[in-house]
Amino acid sequence: MTTPLAPGSTIGILGGGQLGRMLSVAASRLGYRCHIFEPGAAPPAGDVAFAVTTASYDDEAALRAFADAVDVITYEFENIPTSALDLLEAHGPIRPGREALRVSQDRLTEKRFMADLGLATAPFAPVDSAATLAEALEQIGTPAILKTRRFGYDGKGQARIMAPGDASQALADMQGAPAILEGFVPFSSEVSVIAARGLDGQVTAYDPGQNVHEGGILRTTTVPAALPKRLSTDAVLIAARILNALDYVGVMGVELFVTPQELIVNEIAPRVHNSGHWTQDGCAVDQFEQHIRAITGWPLGDGARYADVVMENLIGDDLDQVPALAGAANCALHLYGKAAVKPGRKMGHVNRITAH
Amino acid sequence: MTTPLAPGSTIGILGGGQLGRMLSVAASRLGYRCHIFEPGAAPPAGDVAFAVTTASYDDEAALRAFADAVDVITYEFENIPTSALDLLEAHGPIRPGREALRVSQDRLTEKRFMADLGLATAPFAPVDSAATLAEALEQIGTPAILKTRRFGYDGKGQARIMAPGDASQALADMQGAPAILEGFVPFSSEVSVIAARGLDGQVTAYDPGQNVHEGGILRTTTVPAALPKRLSTDAVLIAARILNALDYVGVMGVELFVTPQELIVNEIAPRVHNSGHWTQDGCAVDQFEQHIRAITGWPLGDGARYADVVMENLIGDDLDQVPALAGAANCALHLYGKAAVKPGRKMGHVNRITAH
Repeated sequence: MTTPLAPGSTIGILGGGQLGRMLSVAASRLGYRCHIFEPGAAPPAGDVAFAVTTASYDDEAALRAFADAVDVITYEFENIPTSALDLLEAHGPIRPGREALRVSQDRLTEKRFMADLGLATAPFAPVDSAATLAEALEQIGTPAILKTRRFGYDGKGQARIMAPGDASQALADMQGAPAILEGFVPFSSEVSVIAARGLDGQVTAYDPGQNVHEGGILRTTTVPAALPKRLSTDAVLIAARILNALDYVGVMGVELFVTPQELIVNEIAPRVHNSGHWTQDGCAVDQFEQHIRAITGWPLGDGARYADVVMENLIGDDLDQVPALAGAANCALHLYGKAAVKPGRKMGHVNRITAH
Repeated sequence: MTTPLAPGSTIGILGGGQLGRMLSVAASRLGYRCHIFEPGAAPPAGDVAFAVTTASYDDEAALRAFADAVDVITYEFENIPTSALDLLEAHGPIRPGREALRVSQDRLTEKRFMADLGLATAPFAPVDSAATLAEALEQIGTPAILKTRRFGYDGKGQARIMAPGDASQALADMQGAPAILEGFVPFSSEVSVIAARGLDGQVTAYDPGQNVHEGGILRTTTVPAALPKRLSTDAVLIAARILNALDYVGVMGVELFVTPQELIVNEIAPRVHNSGHWTQDGCAVDQFEQHIRAITGWPLGDGARYADVVMENLIGDDLDQVPALAGAANCALHLYGKAAVKPGRKMGHVNRITAH
């Protein structure tokens, strides 16, 4: 076994949103402190952090001071500028490592990586012009979806092409950014696997959760997922294959489409994942602690599921439900302390424990 | 229903130990920030707090600035100097209120309060001299235990009197402090009830836990306690009577001795309590969140127990067990991030989930 990072050490987290916030809380349970690096003011993670650096990702002095103040660096989002990563990496370990970021930051690279691993994906083709889009549409057909290769999240940077006539508007929506055309997969449901790989290569995975999206944003995750045992096992094996291929350290979210025949990899996120929030109230060790364990060299913890849970995101005005949820039985609330309520903004989530 | 403190408000916590640390984490789940006031350097609660004031309780300027920066004040220990409370109370609400502190800060006042409520206590008598000790011993007999009226915790400030010959040494151990002589209660076990009372007077209680002490320090708490149903109900009713009599707001720990006939009140703590740590992994809403709910005007949450749990404190060198516990099934670790390991120092705890 590797020797874990000493108690009292400091974990640097790039990004100060709700994921950083819950990572910091989990780190405290293992005796670590967290230092948040975040360009925005009043980051949610700052409420429960040992230290906060407010600076942009091109502020080299701030990045250097941050790197010097921490013992290991992790992140809560994958779109960190390469220049910042280059600078930070010279000072100490970044976990999960660069390869996972390289693959997951670019949808085309990610799809090719999955295909090389022999995993099923939606049909795809690169698009950078009207000509390559026409070619891609001929190959893949409609309906299809055009996505920017980089910097998309929560349905942003995407345009549906229901018929060839939608093509030029979809291309215009990309605003000149390199894109990828993806064919529609006739899936019956979407599940995700939250998997973890330790510093020593140990791999574990939580039970798959079944996801429902609305407007490109995760609405609910339900465990157990309605998934035949065979596919449930497949899901975990697919996740393990990805983590091992990347020599990954940390927690990863793997989104999968379920078809009657097989599981199709939709996308991966090299971090703790919204669809894993149910673990906070369904397992002895949740995804946040599992991530901290992995990146600090602890053995991975017991992630066996002991409850049926429905995780529901509280988005924008959903916050109005809090008074009713506050008094409800079997509900665990997790609010993010965000000052401004905006449509589409994730303000918190509730884990409804539906059976023990 | 009262309107809860607005999201994003700041809760001031007097004391920066592990209880403050876990209160701060719970407050974050409800969207609040915590500001810690603590004389000692590098307080455990500071790792997960929005702000920390390092100052002594007689630093009036620091107390004033702290009070001005927070929206409500609570505390993690009961021995706060009266002068500090007087100053803080002029700026805003302190919850639980002064009456609970007045009663619980003085063992004699506390015993008289219980007796006035018609609750059973150990026989007791005030002691402030050799003459009053002799008188008390005549009334109560031996074995008995002499305790300072104020500032005792974890078995400190106590001396056993097994026979009258021990009296003078015991009195000397009090170092001139006002004391109370308590008779031994022939109890079969000790249980505690963690109860909460909301701003609106709503009262709730967690299932009683069974405590084992070693050397005056809590070693384990087990739920469910081996307690006949009748006494289990009594325990909750006793706690409710105490909370209502004090017009209490917040969580309280009530320690009870179990005899074949009845429950005898040992002592109360006007705060979250070590014997309630099992709630973190046995209930949808734990004692820390329940306390935050109470003092911020939320409805009390669902504290129904959904698991059997054995909470074990990790004291001093017990920290050496962490590597083994880290990989164990059904174990949830909670470390406090304390730098120095000392004998008798609470370094963390583990909740072993023994059944769901």
